[in-house]
Amino acid sequence: MLAHKDVFCEKPVGFDMDEILGTYEVIKQASSLVQVGFNRRYDKSFARIIELRDQDAIGDPQILKITSRDPEPPSHDYVAVSGGIFMDMTIHDFDMARFITGQEVESVYATGGIMIDPGIAQYDDLDTAITTLNFVNGMIGVIDNSRQATYGYDQRIELFGSKGMAHAGNVRESTTALATKAGTVDDNPLFFFLQRYIDAYKTEIESFLDSVRNREATKCTYEDGIKAIRIAEAAKQSYQEKKPVEVKNIYGD
Amino acid sequence: MLAHKDVFCEKPVGFDMDEILGTYEVIKQASSLVQVGFNRRYDKSFARIIELRDQDAIGDPQILKITSRDPEPPSHDYVAVSGGIFMDMTIHDFDMARFITGQEVESVYATGGIMIDPGIAQYDDLDTAITTLNFVNGMIGVIDNSRQATYGYDQRIELFGSKGMAHAGNVRESTTALATKAGTVDDNPLFFFLQRYIDAYKTEIESFLDSVRNREATKCTYEDGIKAIRIAEAAKQSYQEKKPVEVKNIYGD
Amino acid sequence: MLAHKDVFCEKPVGFDMDEILGTYEVIKQASSLVQVGFNRRYDKSFARIIELRDQDAIGDPQILKITSRDPEPPSHDYVAVSGGIFMDMTIHDFDMARFITGQEVESVYATGGIMIDPGIAQYDDLDTAITTLNFVNGMIGVIDNSRQATYGYDQRIELFGSKGMAHAGNVRESTTALATKAGTVDDNPLFFFLQRYIDAYKTEIESFLDSVRNREATKCTYEDGIKAIRIAEAAKQSYQEKKPVEVKNIYGD
Amino acid sequence: MLAHKDVFCEKPVGFDMDEILGTYEVIKQASSLVQVGFNRRYDKSFARIIELRDQDAIGDPQILKITSRDPEPPSHDYVAVSGGIFMDMTIHDFDMARFITGQEVESVYATGGIMIDPGIAQYDDLDTAITTLNFVNGMIGVIDNSRQATYGYDQRIELFGSKGMAHAGNVRESTTALATKAGTVDDNPLFFFLQRYIDAYKTEIESFLDSVRNREATKCTYEDGIKAIRIAEAAKQSYQEKKPVEVKNIYGD
Repeated sequence: MLAHKDVFCEKPVGFDMDEILGTYEVIKQASSLVQVGFNRRYDKSFARIIELRDQDAIGDPQILKITSRDPEPPSHDYVAVSGGIFMDMTIHDFDMARFITGQEVESVYATGGIMIDPGIAQYDDLDTAITTLNFVNGMIGVIDNSRQATYGYDQRIELFGSKGMAHAGNVRESTTALATKAGTVDDNPLFFFLQRYIDAYKTEIESFLDSVRNREATKCTYEDGIKAIRIAEAAKQSYQEKKPVEVKNIYGD
Repeated sequence: MLAHKDVFCEKPVGFDMDEILGTYEVIKQASSLVQVGFNRRYDKSFARIIELRDQDAIGDPQILKITSRDPEPPSHDYVAVSGGIFMDMTIHDFDMARFITGQEVESVYATGGIMIDPGIAQYDDLDTAITTLNFVNGMIGVIDNSRQATYGYDQRIELFGSKGMAHAGNVRESTTALATKAGTVDDNPLFFFLQRYIDAYKTEIESFLDSVRNREATKCTYEDGIKAIRIAEAAKQSYQEKKPVEVKNIYGD
Repeated sequence: MLAHKDVFCEKPVGFDMDEILGTYEVIKQASSLVQVGFNRRYDKSFARIIELRDQDAIGDPQILKITSRDPEPPSHDYVAVSGGIFMDMTIHDFDMARFITGQEVESVYATGGIMIDPGIAQYDDLDTAITTLNFVNGMIGVIDNSRQATYGYDQRIELFGSKGMAHAGNVRESTTALATKAGTVDDNPLFFFLQRYIDAYKTEIESFLDSVRNREATKCTYEDGIKAIRIAEAAKQSYQEKKPVEVKNIYGD
Repeated sequence: MLAHKDVFCEKPVGFDMDEILGTYEVIKQASSLVQVGFNRRYDKSFARIIELRDQDAIGDPQILKITSRDPEPPSHDYVAVSGGIFMDMTIHDFDMARFITGQEVESVYATGGIMIDPGIAQYDDLDTAITTLNFVNGMIGVIDNSRQATYGYDQRIELFGSKGMAHAGNVRESTTALATKAGTVDDNPLFFFLQRYIDAYKTEIESFLDSVRNREATKCTYEDGIKAIRIAEAAKQSYQEKKPVEVKNIYGD
């Protein structure tokens, strides 16, 4: 039964693919608008990369690099229901990979291990990973993840191409540096996602409200949500099978 | 007649010293709270310098440096009623000099000229200045001002002491840099005060409301407003007379 | 026949493994000293990472990241005899991977393509690659390579661990930045290896002469040369077979 | 008596003006070449400012800022014969002021005090100073000096003009930064002049030898040496008399 409500849905849109695709069929028939909560799409520094890409300042993109590290590992309670690192954490990076390049991911290869909290082994999860991406247009990319960066939330993206490179660095609490005998110390990156992406969250909600007001497609659709999940599933499978996995083999194409 | 309203007053608190001091007498007798709008006191990066100073990370402060440059010159209409560069623009830096060091200014020496808009000569004003400060505790400082920095609002403060130096740099639109054959380009400083100090303005108003709620002295009092004006007057006089001027000689001590 | 000369040998020590291993046998029986020319081991910024690692400032290393991009692609004449990108270019990064982590590489996965010069297809080579590394102690790493970075020689290394991260950035011609309406422009990285590693080359030769003088093992031995070649061969095979390859399977262990 | 030798002379060229000017007369009549050792003229980052100025990237220069701080104060033995801070230390900055702007200094105003070593009072010297400069073309400048910067040799120059600003920052031992819970720490500036200007010293000597070989005027003449001394004398007098002093009043024009 359709309530015809417009929906803002946090990521991931689900864990069970039958359920996800069933929901998708309903959504497609409804006139409802759905926006998936990939908040990083609204970050100023990442948006600036896209602006430079669209101005052809980077040329043909060739290499994408994403560093995405949390300041501290999640609780075991959270890990138990998180869907695992690829579905819970890297999924944001998979969405950014699609968003920043404007390209679909063809295949992935993931490796990693448990380096921070041995206790998560019981959840069949890992906490440190590197995932290589092959895009349909031939370009390549890599994401590195850690569940624990002592210096704060490490969120960097680099798009390298035939004309140049755009690099988005971390955002810090202040621009003040202290120079003493011990070196010149800058503030660390903002602690975690609530600090780093506070402005992005505001822009995200404004964007949703604009879509609702104008009855236009949202800037991050249910389909975007599904695509990120499929890449996450492919990464998980790649990690388990120790070989590259094509995304099209995940739940059909 | 006293309305007993609490007052948030933009800087400068006035141009006529008799009027300013008369108002001060009224305020002192009233139970009203007055906060003067020196917005930069609420900037995170400048606040960080004070935090480091109070932690004794800088040691005994010895040299203060303030760079304060506007992106574009004001209109002639504005210049005509502005009170001149020292009263209109440098007054913020004079307040910061007191705020960042926690010390009073004893004397000033100002030099400069008209380098941007010859038309302001008719208003007996200048657009480029360097003002040297001597503080009562012996430390020294310098402020440089320009009415036109092509690259944006340039707002830097450096406090140097016996243990180290704290330096607050500019805030930029994003952290994204573009590297091409032409060099590695960072975003410029945020355009002007509304962009740079938007968070400071919010904190400033919250601080005023907190003071009102708690019936406590504001964080930037009417007296702070008067002190900055006296330094500005001393700077103007120094510029005109081409010699250092003691602040105590401005409107008595 | 042994001439008993001490030898400084540029990388790679050879292309033919039988020849390389045969030479190794001779060297082991001779009293000659051999130093292989992995010049980057003598770069100050990379050496600083090792210093920080050895001081336990980074904690247990978990992720290694190397960016290694040339400013311009080699000539076809050079490509024809280069041994391919992994043997000619990435081999330096494979040596750095061992040097910076102090760990041996267990397996590699390489992906990439021809994105710069289609003409190199005839040499069965590629010009853009990402290589993932698994080390014997469980830590992971990634190297990204390009034969053409318009902004200059891009040589960065990052070692991330349980206590922190050390990051070595590029070296620039000067520290002078220009801020104009168009942004704040820094000098690009030094153009190529002769500029970036000029000091490293000097230190390298001094190190060799010290070893000769003191009849001590060199800082970069023939065995180091062989190990880098084996990783390069594994990477090449991984790229061709589109799957991870264990280094021990290259020419036996 | 003239030996007709070409001479490389360290700064200052002397303390006694009669002797200095007498020597100048001899030099002018001889065919000897004289180069004065203002080593900073050969620093790459400062040279880059001049390059940008000559390309008109900065536009009409309006403000010059020089920060020049030593890592540690000199011995009393040295202070006793040094000629005082303006003649011994700031003299380099006075030369740079002329070199970077291409303009002569018209007048100076100096203030400062003893903040580091009270013992130097007996030598009638000071250890911390700010000197404001007025140039003949109307532009203004400021130099700040300290005899003790805990974080190393602080040597920065900024030239601000109608089109933009060039800023030369400090040079560091390496480009490696360490990020931990305590912040992101960069290497400090190189310790002192022997470290910072080692390349400049080489270029300086090469420049002298080139001049000798080609019988051409040196890049830093005896007259440059005299001009810097006159500004230093004016600064000293300004400090003592607490008022701006015109350089032309020092030993006639």
